[in-house]
Amino acid sequence: MNTDAPTKRPGGRSARVRAAVHGAAVALVAERGADQVTLPAVAERAGVNSSTIYRRWGTLAALLADIAQHRGESGAPPLVGDLRTDLENQAVWTLAELSRPGGIAFFRAEVAPDVDDRHEGLRECLRRVGERFRPVLDTARERGDTPPPPSLEQVLDRIVAPLYFRVVFSIPGTDEAYVRELVGGFVGEPGPGA
Amino acid sequence: MNTDAPTKRPGGRSARVRAAVHGAAVALVAERGADQVTLPAVAERAGVNSSTIYRRWGTLAALLADIAQHRGESGAPPLVGDLRTDLENQAVWTLAELSRPGGIAFFRAEVAPDVDDRHEGLRECLRRVGERFRPVLDTARERGDTPPPPSLEQVLDRIVAPLYFRVVFSIPGTDEAYVRELVGGFVGEPGPGA
Repeated sequence: MNTDAPTKRPGGRSARVRAAVHGAAVALVAERGADQVTLPAVAERAGVNSSTIYRRWGTLAALLADIAQHRGESGAPPLVGDLRTDLENQAVWTLAELSRPGGIAFFRAEVAPDVDDRHEGLRECLRRVGERFRPVLDTARERGDTPPPPSLEQVLDRIVAPLYFRVVFSIPGTDEAYVRELVGGFVGEPGPGA
Repeated sequence: MNTDAPTKRPGGRSARVRAAVHGAAVALVAERGADQVTLPAVAERAGVNSSTIYRRWGTLAALLADIAQHRGESGAPPLVGDLRTDLENQAVWTLAELSRPGGIAFFRAEVAPDVDDRHEGLRECLRRVGERFRPVLDTARERGDTPPPPSLEQVLDRIVAPLYFRVVFSIPGTDEAYVRELVGGFVGEPGPGA
């Protein structure tokens, strides 16, 4: 990961502005819903000039996507070294991120119908999801698990896709117990890596 | 299904307006992308007064959701009486609907961040998806298939969710062969209905 990007330098003015703007946007989305939030309202709440926000993010969708990206980089559960447990933990965490106030709004912003932003946001969102689960699969392969772990693509189909689908469609019962059952049904099958 | 709704009466003025507006909207979305389409532009293309469109649909999102609903009601493949084949056919058709020009734009419109519209659109979208697959499962149960067919919820998790996820994220290789493999991996498992 590129942790040297100038906009992420901790402690600088740029980082302070970003933190204030992110905090204001998250609070406003939670209070009003993403459709009632505008960049000027975020600027006012953050105590930052509107023109700064327009220059740096351009659109609300881009700002929300930046927040989603930032969220995805911190707080991931550590690996414990067991495929099923690690998949469960990453999946539970993914669900928690999607379910918190505004969580799905940030996902929606990433898949917004704004063509250029969308392609960028989607690539980024998929990359982040991949980065959550890839280490789980890599370490299982390195340990020499039998049967071998599934592919990342199988994890997307069997775990990540149902989570997103269920959160987007607000399907009842999409909770931690459901996630553990989903993972158990997948990993418990004969030869998911076959 | 409520086929008696007055707005669907075939041959009436209302139905003609709807057909013209739907056709214009589909063409414009395919040409420009949903984010570049406005209700006045649709009105102009359809040769209909803007105020008629605003009165009847209110927002572009509502219009696109209406189109998505209308699309979902026609053209479903007939059941052949074999669980796997019927699931494959419905899934292939679902993918084709999502993949045609503007298909995913119509889905996006349904999950748009416009709170009231969204809940309505989501319920409707999920209902439509359910109506595609429920008859497949019902007839398999009535035939007395062994093992019994999966639940609708399992079909959503294992077939529908990956399709939507892959189309939203433009994951390469999401084609008919992939769909048949997805269904085969699901139905071929021991006891999916257990």
